[in-house]
Amino acid sequence: MSKLMGVNSVVIKGIPVSEGIGLGRAVVIKESEYTVKKTKIEDTGAELRRFLDSIEKAKEQIRKIKAESQESMGEKNAMIFDAHLLILDDPEFLNMVKEKIEEGINAEFAIDESARFFENILLSLEDEYMRERANDIKDVALRLIRILNGEEQIDLKNLPEDSILVAHDLTPSQIAQINKQNVRGFVTEKGGKTSHTAIIARTYEIPAVVGVEDIINKIKDGDFLIVDGYEGFVYVNPEEDLIKEYEKKLVEENKRKEELKSFLYVESKTQDGKRIKLFANIAHIEEIDAALKNGAEGIGLFRTEFLFMDRSQPPSEDEQFEVYKTVLEKMEGKPVIIRTLDVGGDKNISYLNIDKEENPFLGYRAIRLCLGNKELFKTQLRALLRASIYGKLKIMFPMITCIDEVYQAKWIIQEAKEELKKENISYSQNIEIGIMIETPAAAVISDILAKEVDFFSIGTNDLIQYTLAIDRTNDKVSYLYNPLHPAILRLIKMTVENAHKRGIEVGVCGEIASNQEFVSVLIGLGVDELSVNPSKILNVKKKILQTRFEEENLRVRELLNWQ
Amino acid sequence: MSKLMGVNSVVIKGIPVSEGIGLGRAVVIKESEYTVKKTKIEDTGAELRRFLDSIEKAKEQIRKIKAESQESMGEKNAMIFDAHLLILDDPEFLNMVKEKIEEGINAEFAIDESARFFENILLSLEDEYMRERANDIKDVALRLIRILNGEEQIDLKNLPEDSILVAHDLTPSQIAQINKQNVRGFVTEKGGKTSHTAIIARTYEIPAVVGVEDIINKIKDGDFLIVDGYEGFVYVNPEEDLIKEYEKKLVEENKRKEELKSFLYVESKTQDGKRIKLFANIAHIEEIDAALKNGAEGIGLFRTEFLFMDRSQPPSEDEQFEVYKTVLEKMEGKPVIIRTLDVGGDKNISYLNIDKEENPFLGYRAIRLCLGNKELFKTQLRALLRASIYGKLKIMFPMITCIDEVYQAKWIIQEAKEELKKENISYSQNIEIGIMIETPAAAVISDILAKEVDFFSIGTNDLIQYTLAIDRTNDKVSYLYNPLHPAILRLIKMTVENAHKRGIEVGVCGEIASNQEFVSVLIGLGVDELSVNPSKILNVKKKILQTRFEEENLRVRELLNWQ
Repeated sequence: MSKLMGVNSVVIKGIPVSEGIGLGRAVVIKESEYTVKKTKIEDTGAELRRFLDSIEKAKEQIRKIKAESQESMGEKNAMIFDAHLLILDDPEFLNMVKEKIEEGINAEFAIDESARFFENILLSLEDEYMRERANDIKDVALRLIRILNGEEQIDLKNLPEDSILVAHDLTPSQIAQINKQNVRGFVTEKGGKTSHTAIIARTYEIPAVVGVEDIINKIKDGDFLIVDGYEGFVYVNPEEDLIKEYEKKLVEENKRKEELKSFLYVESKTQDGKRIKLFANIAHIEEIDAALKNGAEGIGLFRTEFLFMDRSQPPSEDEQFEVYKTVLEKMEGKPVIIRTLDVGGDKNISYLNIDKEENPFLGYRAIRLCLGNKELFKTQLRALLRASIYGKLKIMFPMITCIDEVYQAKWIIQEAKEELKKENISYSQNIEIGIMIETPAAAVISDILAKEVDFFSIGTNDLIQYTLAIDRTNDKVSYLYNPLHPAILRLIKMTVENAHKRGIEVGVCGEIASNQEFVSVLIGLGVDELSVNPSKILNVKKKILQTRFEEENLRVRELLNWQ
Repeated sequence: MSKLMGVNSVVIKGIPVSEGIGLGRAVVIKESEYTVKKTKIEDTGAELRRFLDSIEKAKEQIRKIKAESQESMGEKNAMIFDAHLLILDDPEFLNMVKEKIEEGINAEFAIDESARFFENILLSLEDEYMRERANDIKDVALRLIRILNGEEQIDLKNLPEDSILVAHDLTPSQIAQINKQNVRGFVTEKGGKTSHTAIIARTYEIPAVVGVEDIINKIKDGDFLIVDGYEGFVYVNPEEDLIKEYEKKLVEENKRKEELKSFLYVESKTQDGKRIKLFANIAHIEEIDAALKNGAEGIGLFRTEFLFMDRSQPPSEDEQFEVYKTVLEKMEGKPVIIRTLDVGGDKNISYLNIDKEENPFLGYRAIRLCLGNKELFKTQLRALLRASIYGKLKIMFPMITCIDEVYQAKWIIQEAKEELKKENISYSQNIEIGIMIETPAAAVISDILAKEVDFFSIGTNDLIQYTLAIDRTNDKVSYLYNPLHPAILRLIKMTVENAHKRGIEVGVCGEIASNQEFVSVLIGLGVDELSVNPSKILNVKKKILQTRFEEENLRVRELLNWQ
């Protein structure tokens, strides 16, 4: 390797989570916490002016971001930025910093100390909203300190071309802001194969390597990087030879993608003629085009939670209606499975006031939260019913563990229908109702559940997580994550058999549906439909076309007893 | 009710988690966080003396606790108290407080602000040990502020007679310190039926009511309380009539306990002659007497984690050997199932440096942690092997999810045996090896696992938790906790059938084994052994004696398909 690498070049190994090759310049997202040094200031007047200048610059930056985000994301984020602007005008905060500077303390330290003082006060309050304001103060202080240090603010909405994002971790709301067309790769310290970053990276076909230790110190802003999303290597300032080698690989990769396009109009079935429906998982309207472009026969999973994130209140019935209508219309009569709100767990939403939980994955989330917030739930269901006349809608409930939850959810749909009837608003009479099979309980009682619903969709990520009792985002136990564990295969088989006995279909919308290794296993287990990220559809189709169902079915029987 | 209650009397409803009636005076354990008001001080000299006095008093208190805990718990806690004493002598901390007082700030606020300053610095450091010291500073500051406020420190080791402990929550380490013979009841805000507080309360037959909202504000130190652990009522300063009524109930309760003793020498079997072995769950050596007194046929679960808690380093092989030997000797040849270290999750242990996890129940715990800390694990296994010659030892591994973990654990036992052989140390040749069935995965592959072990013990608490994807300590989802969920019953049935096919026995050591409602269900499912808290053995035996296996077996077949 040394022959290939320049004097300052380094290669780092991580976990490859999104295939592809990316070349570009590092944009490092620093942590939001760091220590500030206290120094003694002689010219307190000059220091005061430095502070006041930083205030003005900060206001300018915030106003700019606010204006831009209103364009791209509506009014959602406006409130946060208003709060930031208010802090920059807050006399108590400003005076505390000024007093400290007048005592001869440097502006950075004075800001940090004052911010911490107010943060602590806010954090000690009962009110959830006020406690959240502590974060705003921290954000503002960090912005001021960065301005004083001459550090540039990273504007995720306007990343330069050929950026490679380097961060400790990326939050779902950060990822939502990124202008993905300029990003050539993600490199993060945290995360595993099924973390949010990984899922989004695969959705947008952005190469990603995660689980890279101490990257914030290994990579500087502007470093030239090669991200190898196949092998998990990140090359920092590599030599010219290596760059050329990877540029060649990139060309080959693009050629392979061209080849896959030849399968676009071929029917998705095994060599021995078993039809496997091929659907797309999407989270944003903008992904529908990618789904259609890659030949999706329908949407197997439309995640609605992103509609509810990064805003100060839930979307109205009308706003939701427009989104659902758009999906259904764009899919032109192809089936569209829309999953009702699946939040809680790692996808927290401030206005829902979800308490901090010790084990959010085992907590108040998904259908539990919806049944406990009936108005929120019914609003979504009304929006779905109203949209149903624009295409072939199927409604799906997440995280079902018992038949009672199915009864309750169906009852609320019935209520919503009756309301709409009274209001003379039409809805389709043929909406199928299905559930996610993603808890061990649901798989084990799938015979009971099959009597009450029209379809199943197996969420393998969660099913594996709960069956093996491992948090899929916890690096220390990810070694146990094994989709071929016989317990998982048996639960899938049980679910498929119970569904088929009742004449209903079973899809798989978890990550493994798009993994070359597992597609044939799922086919062997008798699954009817696979739903994968748009970018993976043709890959999976290629695999389906190469597979023989009878062969896989025999092979699976062995796997069921083997570990 | 009002007729019965005095003017200031109040009745509060909570969740009854440990049966029994307790009468006594409230000892309120306040939260470790509260806000301190800033006031302007004129006589800074006097304030400084107040501060210095509080330092001396704090040192006195700590030295006293340290001496007492050394007597009762060995050297374990000494390190923490030494750290506290060091902080009270730390010139940087003392000077910062002094400077603030000299500026005219009250001592409480000066302490609080200074402590937060150092806390923040420590929390920002990489080193886990230093980050933990932030807690010590917080503890010390709290102690000083309490002294300044004239509040008494609660000494859990020396609670007054007839105390009723009232707290937001009790940590396992707090509970370990309590002198239980003086406690007549627990009342907590947090927790559910299977929280640690609830389990310990039942173990020591202390009435307990949990899930009581806002109790810290409803109950004052010294209030006279009646805790009704049957109905979940807590009466605060009740009228004389009600006290008399409850005193009468207490007498009846004691009479019932006398009656149960008549079953002591009766063999545990159903009316139609099916033998059900009745074992005891224990966590401390001190509980063996209670187990024997109540006629336990063996120990079905000896939790070893308490040996590892509240200390600065793990117990040595010799220390463990002595404990295991004592249990085995005291049980005089009766079977003793000792479970290897089951920590992580809610039972954290500082010296193991377990990272804070997002979902500890789905994290690095139990067998996972042991296989990852081979020396720690092997030390325990060596101690167990050495003790095995003093009785009938069975070793049990917790949290198994795959066959590979069984292979690895057995391999390490083999290594330990070979080491002992070389060292000429003897061990029993007939040690049975078993596993907990407490993950859905283990239940589903129990046929595969049964080939490799000598017995199963079903941990129903965790099995329910993972199968239904609910954190059993989370109040918001506890409504879903249902041991009669057909998925749970099916998984237990599957496990029993797979075990019996291989000729191995199945016990149940979870909470439901001692619940009157479920004992007959477990018998109907074909379980061979029930292991319950010592105090519950005779209750359960009474139930077994009333049950007909054939009848229950038929009834269970219905339950399996019903919800």
